[in-house]
Amino acid sequence: MTVDDLLVIHQITQLKYRYMRAVDTQDWELLRTVFTANARAWYDNGALAAEGRDGIVAMLSGSLRPTLYSSHTALHPEITLTGPGTAKGVWRFEDIVHFAQSDPEFVVEAQDGERLIGAGYYYDEYALEDGDWRIANTGYVRLFQARERQPLQAEFEPARGRLARRA
Amino acid sequence: MTVDDLLVIHQITQLKYRYMRAVDTQDWELLRTVFTANARAWYDNGALAAEGRDGIVAMLSGSLRPTLYSSHTALHPEITLTGPGTAKGVWRFEDIVHFAQSDPEFVVEAQDGERLIGAGYYYDEYALEDGDWRIANTGYVRLFQARERQPLQAEFEPARGRLARRA
Amino acid sequence: MTVDDLLVIHQITQLKYRYMRAVDTQDWELLRTVFTANARAWYDNGALAAEGRDGIVAMLSGSLRPTLYSSHTALHPEITLTGPGTAKGVWRFEDIVHFAQSDPEFVVEAQDGERLIGAGYYYDEYALEDGDWRIANTGYVRLFQARERQPLQAEFEPARGRLARRA
Repeated sequence: MTVDDLLVIHQITQLKYRYMRAVDTQDWELLRTVFTANARAWYDNGALAAEGRDGIVAMLSGSLRPTLYSSHTALHPEITLTGPGTAKGVWRFEDIVHFAQSDPEFVVEAQDGERLIGAGYYYDEYALEDGDWRIANTGYVRLFQARERQPLQAEFEPARGRLARRA
Repeated sequence: MTVDDLLVIHQITQLKYRYMRAVDTQDWELLRTVFTANARAWYDNGALAAEGRDGIVAMLSGSLRPTLYSSHTALHPEITLTGPGTAKGVWRFEDIVHFAQSDPEFVVEAQDGERLIGAGYYYDEYALEDGDWRIANTGYVRLFQARERQPLQAEFEPARGRLARRA
Repeated sequence: MTVDDLLVIHQITQLKYRYMRAVDTQDWELLRTVFTANARAWYDNGALAAEGRDGIVAMLSGSLRPTLYSSHTALHPEITLTGPGTAKGVWRFEDIVHFAQSDPEFVVEAQDGERLIGAGYYYDEYALEDGDWRIANTGYVRLFQARERQPLQAEFEPARGRLARRA
């Protein structure tokens, strides 16, 4: 393990954090920049899968509607460099999704006011493409997902976490 | 990006973790050490704002009462060095606040037994002052905040996470 | 603080993430590799304590039954090198434990469908042994632990987050 390896690992963590930020702020332009052209994604044990940058962005922007407010966190990066310009990584994640309106087409049918809380592990592959580290393959296997139906009194922030959208 | 940059970024993450620890263990002496003399803070989209190290510590120690038990976590550091001795950073956070007693003066009026769960993004600025990296400006924009009123059966640890306070 | 220190700190974070992954995927073989032969553990303010690698693995594998699904996350590493081949670290953690069946012998008696949500700080010691960094002493002091009894509609993933167990 060398200092150059540490620098690459740092770049890959930054890539992952940009991806997570794009998802929760619903910044689909930013999301496009994190994938390789031929990337593959298989979320929720494969229930949501797509190929190619355009296909993945279309799937995520279609699934993560403006009426839901999500928090996906990625932790415990175990990143391994597998060759020149390739790497893989395992991450823990937790996700919380609040539904401000019913969303019958979500991965699990969701009612207005519900909340999903889940956890699992991402299994990622990364590649250098056009000079930047990008996600070539990403998906996850869950530990659990719990649906909470007690009435929640939730406030949603229209800025959705973005500084530039704050008046 | 150089190894020296990595070392600075490491120092800044350590600063942030010290800040988070001071808040949740309610260690106001430790909290004083993390801010520049003229720091600014704007929490909860600006609902809680203060200027100057003394003002920020007074605001936080006044708001985070001994009767609440909080867990603030900072994740996904995206730190950029902006000049000699200055840097900025974006972090995801999640916060859980348990109220062991009613707290009508909290940012949102809180009843005994309630819990708040929220998420958002910190937008920070850091500066080298008196030889150490310190927080010069910090605040956050939320994604959401949910208030939970079902009766919780919670146990609070008098040591509040501090080893030295454990008998 | 040097680059070599950064490399050691990186190794120690990898060790901790392996430990966390072993616990939540209930991979007891992996868990054995993270401890020194004479390690000590004191979980939940000492309510669960054991000495020696074998004793700790026996205690954890006995307590974390197949009928519970846990998510333990470690954050905010503050790691200090204390000598040649020794280090210590403070980490924030959060834990969520879902009980798919009643578990009267858990640290707190748990009913079918219950969930525990807690937070606190790990206080760890690490040592180089047989060429690898290992945990020599670990334990935690809580901030709080809440027990939730509203009926949860939870789905548990038999693969328990492991890629290799996914069909």
